[in-house]
Formats: sequence, structure tokens, C-alpha cells
Amino acid sequence: MKTNEKLNLTMLCDFYELTMGNGYFVDGKADQICYFDVFFRNVPDGGGFAIAAGLEQVVEYIRDLHFSEDDLAYLRGRGIFDEGFLHYLENFHFTGDIYAVPEGTPVFPREPILTVRAPAIEAQLVETYILLALNHQSLIATKANRVVRAAEGRRVLEFGSRRAQGAQAAILGARAAYIGGCDGTACTISDQLYGVFAGGTMAHSWVQMFDSEYEAFKRYCELYPTNAVLLVDTYNTLKSGVPNAIRAFNEVLRPLGIRKCGIRLDSGDMTYLTKKARKMLDEAGWTECEISVSNSLDEYLIQDLLRQGAQIDMFGVGERLITAKSEPVFGGVYKLVAVERPDGTIEPKIKISENVGKITNPHFKKLYRFYGADTGKAIADYLCLHDETVNDGEDLEIFDPEATWKRKKVYNFHARELQVPVFRNGELVYQLPTLNEIRSYCREQVDTLWDEVKRFDNPHTYYVDLSQKLWEIKYRLLKDNACGEHHA
Amino acid sequence: MKTNEKLNLTMLCDFYELTMGNGYFVDGKADQICYFDVFFRNVPDGGGFAIAAGLEQVVEYIRDLHFSEDDLAYLRGRGIFDEGFLHYLENFHFTGDIYAVPEGTPVFPREPILTVRAPAIEAQLVETYILLALNHQSLIATKANRVVRAAEGRRVLEFGSRRAQGAQAAILGARAAYIGGCDGTACTISDQLYGVFAGGTMAHSWVQMFDSEYEAFKRYCELYPTNAVLLVDTYNTLKSGVPNAIRAFNEVLRPLGIRKCGIRLDSGDMTYLTKKARKMLDEAGWTECEISVSNSLDEYLIQDLLRQGAQIDMFGVGERLITAKSEPVFGGVYKLVAVERPDGTIEPKIKISENVGKITNPHFKKLYRFYGADTGKAIADYLCLHDETVNDGEDLEIFDPEATWKRKKVYNFHARELQVPVFRNGELVYQLPTLNEIRSYCREQVDTLWDEVKRFDNPHTYYVDLSQKLWEIKYRLLKDNACGEHHA
Repeated sequence: MKTNEKLNLTMLCDFYELTMGNGYFVDGKADQICYFDVFFRNVPDGGGFAIAAGLEQVVEYIRDLHFSEDDLAYLRGRGIFDEGFLHYLENFHFTGDIYAVPEGTPVFPREPILTVRAPAIEAQLVETYILLALNHQSLIATKANRVVRAAEGRRVLEFGSRRAQGAQAAILGARAAYIGGCDGTACTISDQLYGVFAGGTMAHSWVQMFDSEYEAFKRYCELYPTNAVLLVDTYNTLKSGVPNAIRAFNEVLRPLGIRKCGIRLDSGDMTYLTKKARKMLDEAGWTECEISVSNSLDEYLIQDLLRQGAQIDMFGVGERLITAKSEPVFGGVYKLVAVERPDGTIEPKIKISENVGKITNPHFKKLYRFYGADTGKAIADYLCLHDETVNDGEDLEIFDPEATWKRKKVYNFHARELQVPVFRNGELVYQLPTLNEIRSYCREQVDTLWDEVKRFDNPHTYYVDLSQKLWEIKYRLLKDNACGEHHA
Repeated sequence: MKTNEKLNLTMLCDFYELTMGNGYFVDGKADQICYFDVFFRNVPDGGGFAIAAGLEQVVEYIRDLHFSEDDLAYLRGRGIFDEGFLHYLENFHFTGDIYAVPEGTPVFPREPILTVRAPAIEAQLVETYILLALNHQSLIATKANRVVRAAEGRRVLEFGSRRAQGAQAAILGARAAYIGGCDGTACTISDQLYGVFAGGTMAHSWVQMFDSEYEAFKRYCELYPTNAVLLVDTYNTLKSGVPNAIRAFNEVLRPLGIRKCGIRLDSGDMTYLTKKARKMLDEAGWTECEISVSNSLDEYLIQDLLRQGAQIDMFGVGERLITAKSEPVFGGVYKLVAVERPDGTIEPKIKISENVGKITNPHFKKLYRFYGADTGKAIADYLCLHDETVNDGEDLEIFDPEATWKRKKVYNFHARELQVPVFRNGELVYQLPTLNEIRSYCREQVDTLWDEVKRFDNPHTYYVDLSQKLWEIKYRLLKDNACGEHHA
């Protein structure tokens, strides 16, 4: 098989989606149009915002959605599915609509980052993979953005493939890390497939394969004079590694007139070692030699290193980025928010919970972001009904949906709809941006957030408000359903 | 593409493996035979042992190892590789030997769970994917084994696909969870591809799609009378969900003579709710109705629930298992331990570190596990040189390699070699066991561990000792290299 072929992941669904689908089919609900929202409830690591990512993989999945003969044989073998349903699956494909926020958008809890409008069986079946794709890549893009912000302009490379949770976690994790702001990856296939620049020079084994560290360094400089980054901690960083590197640079690079080179440290006290190494390199005239470090880094360690004055030009971030180790779950959920009646009117649905934070925002909605016209900064997000529009030429009173007496007037603002149409009637209507476009857009949009929202600890809460109409529908449904349970 | 086709993951390598490979080629080291060990340094979650898993995926990867024309075009396009090297890659395949502990084996820090003997370029290139495969599945199998032990014989299903870090994390995570002892998964494709039994019944959306909770339950019982597991927490578990479930069971299942059924809770205070629900079900005559729970469970929450007397027959464990949330990294490393001289003699190699725990065990080795002949319990593991043998007919003195005065005599024991040959000269020589065989073997082998080693917190340290000869070689190398660095 070629490297660029994709797996068909139609069968990557939770089994209950098939038992429910079969039930909808037998029950005559196959054509019942439903609306589902994807949203999340908490930003990982207590951050102020997340970065949406994974939409391109959702698009690939939706376009490829079909059951092969083997898939149908497996399902028939389970012995619980109606033959009519299995026959229906033979020509199964996606016929609905999908709206989503573009990849790279900063997003906030409880707002729909993707909305599906489709017949019940289709809408139900796509739940698992849509969540998986968005959850995984949003998790890594969000983490990467934190790491990159901690590095304050220094380059950050993603180095974690070997600790990734499976092949796709490595390949798409590098993609998501790039969206979040990383400058490249060590993962070759992510460059080949997605254009995430892959780099890397040597492991300790290169050094061990030669009779001496100096010989290993010298040979490497001869082979790659314009990209000589030497790993200096195989034996002893300051006593052996850095002196041998300087000697190899002097003997091989200096006669070639090459000034750019690098050393990498993968162990030890990074602050102490990089300060000493910087001094040794500078004294030897290698002021353009860059120092990279790796070894269990994350945003907090990077902040600490920089506060302590470590001399670092580039960070290689591995397992703590590729698994988002400090909080490795992005909790996106997929919830029914409306169904369509035969006459086309939309009936909003709500999921009650004793935990108020778990109550869904019902109905087919629009999501706006308000930017200050003068500052360009994001002020608040705003959810309204699908057929409402915001006129940003007029002042608008918004309010906290959980403390409705907290009201404020928004004026002199620009309103932007965040969700864009991706599929209509099963057809892709969205021009997928390039990865570099996504990455630039992400950086621009993160720049629209106030610093208070970007703090790592105890960030300012960014508001996602509801329109008056949406709020009224939500609270009517809450009241009705809270009563309804006693009737049943 | 068919569901059961595999991706070619040859290009899932760290870029430095290619720059080093090119360097070995140009430097005439292409045929230099090397030995690399895979081992880990710490058991996740502070546990006493890990479960090895992922070997089957390593085997698939090794057998499929090759570069396509597209891959070579990409590499040529990078502009840094020697044409001779690229030509060499055209016919690249694995020609070496691999030894590994079988999947499902309990393993301990610093012992080789896999060993590669191959020409330098091959041995270097397979580093990333071998580590990725073993790290990922060993992580999940180890976590699953903890969760299953906490459940004390109750069934545990893996429910986490939607929060998995990529498609392979979901698919192979379910496989690894099954090896560790889970009874099944919600992930359909893992059943189809690997035979991990997939099950599941309904989501909240099923309940919301009907005019009342009771109607939703009744229809489900009619559709699946022999597998009616009803989700009872959409509105209010005790006031609405359980009474409606009982009513549906009474009206649909009772006339059919069906006694087996179930309810599932996905929110709220599980101890309180399951006790109350159990009472309500029993009083209504549904004593065979099983209660399943899900919602952010892990081994600690399961222990707590059982200690508090929660009435639970089955646990659905999601995000905290599929990501091993409490410690989502299995830190397996791949280290050069020896090279072969032209005359075939093996020259041991060591990687020094200021951190004693990070120093490698050099040389091509054998790994034994000693079992008490009477108890059947594992006593210690033992690393010796590849050409040493242990005669378990005689007493053997073993010692702590870091505190050599701590010695003990082992007698009346049975010695088993843990690594088995998997590839020889590039040919697969290992009969891959079935998934159920792996799962049974895992359970048997975990049973050979003393309870003290199996404790979740502060487990007894299980010893991995070195033979006298191996210890002497290690300490000679340490001494030589510690001096050597000043020569360079």
C-alpha cells in the first residue's frame, strides 16, 4: 500500500450507533432530520481557550463514508440487525449538512464548534469519528499553542512520535502541533503527507557507533556542513561534548566559511549547562551556533528555563506535547439539539443534567464572535437562533446566561459568524485551507484575544452569551422537561 | 479502501534516523551489525509491573517495511541524501533478527522487552515505530489490567474511542485493553479487525428522539428483547429512568419470559443511585437486571465505588483508560547495547548518564524469569550474557546490581527464558498467538506475581538482577567511558 492512502474508518463507530441506527430504521425514523452539536465543557490545563483542529480529517472521513461488503458481512454475522437495515447500509453515504468553525480558531466552552444536520441514522453514525478527530487534534493544537507561547518567539519542534498513542496520533499530532504554532516535527511522514517540515540530526547511537565522540562529530559535520547540529550529552556535556563540538566546527566548518551550526542537549540541568555551553561557544567564536534542548519539556518547564536565563534558541518538545500529558483528554461531546418536523419546522431538544454545566444549548444556532472595531480584540461570543442576525451597526445588549442580571452593552463592534458551511446535501462546499494558511489564521486569531484570556493560570473567563430568544427557548425547555419526567 | 487494509508506516520514522542512515551508508557502515534493546525505566502510575503489548503490530510493520517510489521522491526532494543511499533504499527490507517477550507478559523496568540485531541502517530506521507500537499498547494494557483488577471480577468494557488520540489509538487501544483483561469494547472496528467483542445499546439521543422516555425504552425492548440495556439518566434516574425501565421490562420482556436485562447510568452519584436502583429493580422482581455504570471511571474510582457498596455489575471505562489519563506516557526507549566486529565478536556498548537509573545494560543478553517450583510464583528476573545459561537444577546466588552486598540464594526454582525469536535473517519465525491466547496468558502470568507486587500504591520492588559476568562488563565499561571522555 502507498504511504498516502487513507484507511476507511466507517466502522470506527461505537456499536450503539449501529443498534440505534437499526432501531431508527425499523421504527420508520430513517429520514428523521436531526441536528447535533459538537461542543466541549472545559479547556484543558485550566486554560482560557482552546484551538479547534481536525476538520480536514472529518471532511476526508465524511467523503469516504461507506460500508464495504466485508463490513456488511461482519454486521450480518452479529445476528441482530434487520435485513432491511443492512440493505440500506449498502448504499449508505452522507447526505446531510455540516457547519463548523475553521481549523485554527480559538474556541470556548459550550459553543458549537461543529453542527451536523442529517437523517437520524447518518447523524448518529458519524458521532464517534467526528468527536475523535476534533478531540484529538484540538487537544494537541491547544497544548502546542501553550508551549509555543511559553517559548516567547523561540522555535519549537514536535519530537514525540515514539511516545504517541498510535500511528495517527504521531502523524496527525504533528499536524495539530503545527497548527498550534510549532515550527516543525521530527516525524518524516507528517512532512511527506501534510507538509509539516521534518528535521532532525543525530541520536546518541550515532555517537556510540564511532570510536570517539570527536570522530562522530567530525564525520557528521563533513556529511551535513550546512545542518550540523551535534548532540553533546552522550558522555559528559561540558567536559567532552561541547569541546568536541567546537573542535569539529573549527576543523570542518570554519575552513568552509560556515558560521551557522548547532548543539543539542537532551539531559542534565538545562539552565546551568546552556549558560556554560553558550559561554564556551561564544569564546570560541561560534556565536551563531544555536543551542537546542529536549527532554520532557512542556510550557511550564520552558517558562522556568527562560526565567532562569537559560541560553536556548530552540526547544524540542516530545511526550508531554504529543500526548498532552498534563491533561490528555479533550472532552468534546456530540449532543442532539433539535429535530425537524415533517413540515420543516425545527423542534429544539435539550439534555437535562443535575449538573447545570452539563445542560445543552438547544436548537439550530448561529455562532458569532464580536471584535472591538478599534482594538480588533475579541469581546465575546454570541449564540443565537439560526434565523436571527446580528446587526453590528447597532448597539447590542448582551447578558450572562447563568446570571441574567449581569448585562452589558456592546457597541462599536464587528460581528463575525464563526461556523462556515462545510457540507450541504452531502456535497463538500468548503475549500479546505492549506496547513500554512490554518497556522497563520490561528496566530492571527490568538492575537485577537486579550492577554488576560491567554494567561496559563486562572485566565479571565471569556463569555459565550445567548440571544434573548435562545435563552427563552432554553429555559422553557428546562421547565417543561423538569416537569415532564414526572408524567412519564 | 477496505477496512482491513493496513497503512504502510515505513515513513513513520524520526527524520534523524534517515540522516544517520545516510551517514552510515556514506561512511561505509551500512553492514555494521548492531544490537538495540527496548526497555522502560518506570512503571506508569507507580505500579509494580507493566504488561507488554504491541508485538503483533511490530511484526506487521517489519514485514511491510519498504519505501515506495513516492517515498523516495520525497526523500530525493529534501536534497540532502546521497544518491547511493536512495538507491539502497529502493530494495530496503528488514534482514535482521528480533527477539521479544510475548504480548501479555508482565514486565519490569530496565529489562529488554525487545531486542533488534540488524545492520546499522535497518536497526536505526525501525526505532520510532517499534517504540510507538510497544509504548502505546503496553501503556493501555497496563492501565486496563489495573482497572480490571480494581473491578474484582466484574466485567469491564472499554468505551473510550471518541476521546482516543487518533484512530489507531481507538482501534489498537481496544485491543490492548482486551489483552489487559477488559471483556470487550464499544469500538465496532476493533471487533471486526481483532475480535475484541464490541457491544453497546443506546445513547441519550435515542431517548430524546421519542416523545417520552417510556416510549423510547419500550421500543428498544421490543427491538432487542435479549439485549435490553436501557440508559436511565436522560431526565432523572430514580424518578423517571428506573421506573420507566421497570415498566418497559414488565410490559415487553415479562410476557416473553425474559429475565436478563440491564440499565446503565452515566451521571450522578453512582453509589447512591445504584443502591436505590438495585432496590427498586429487586422489589419489582427484576433481580437479574444488571446495572452498568460509566462516566470518567478509573481504577481508583472503581475501588471507591465498591468499598462504598455500590451495586454494580459492569463498568464502562472511557477516556481515562483509552488515554491512560493519569499517566499517558509509557517511556520505552531504544538503546544501542552492542556492535559486531568483522570477526563476529560482540563489542558491548553503554550509554552513560549522570542519572544512574538512565545508564543502560550493555551487550547482547538473555532474560530469564525465575518461578518458585512449589509456589509457581515469580521470584526475580535475571539478565545474563547471550551465551550464558541458567541451570535451574542448581542453586544460584543473585545480587542487587546497585547494592551488590545484597545477595540471596535462589533454589528449588524453574527458569524460563522470556524473549522468544520473532525474526531471524528477516524471516518471521514466530507463530503469532490469537488475541484470546494472549489475554489468557496475561491473566495466568499476572497470577504468578505476589500480591505485594500487584499493589496499586507503593508496590514491592520486583528485582531484575544481572549475572556476575554481565555486571562485570557493565562496570568495566562505565569505568572506561568515564575516563574515555577526557581523552576525546
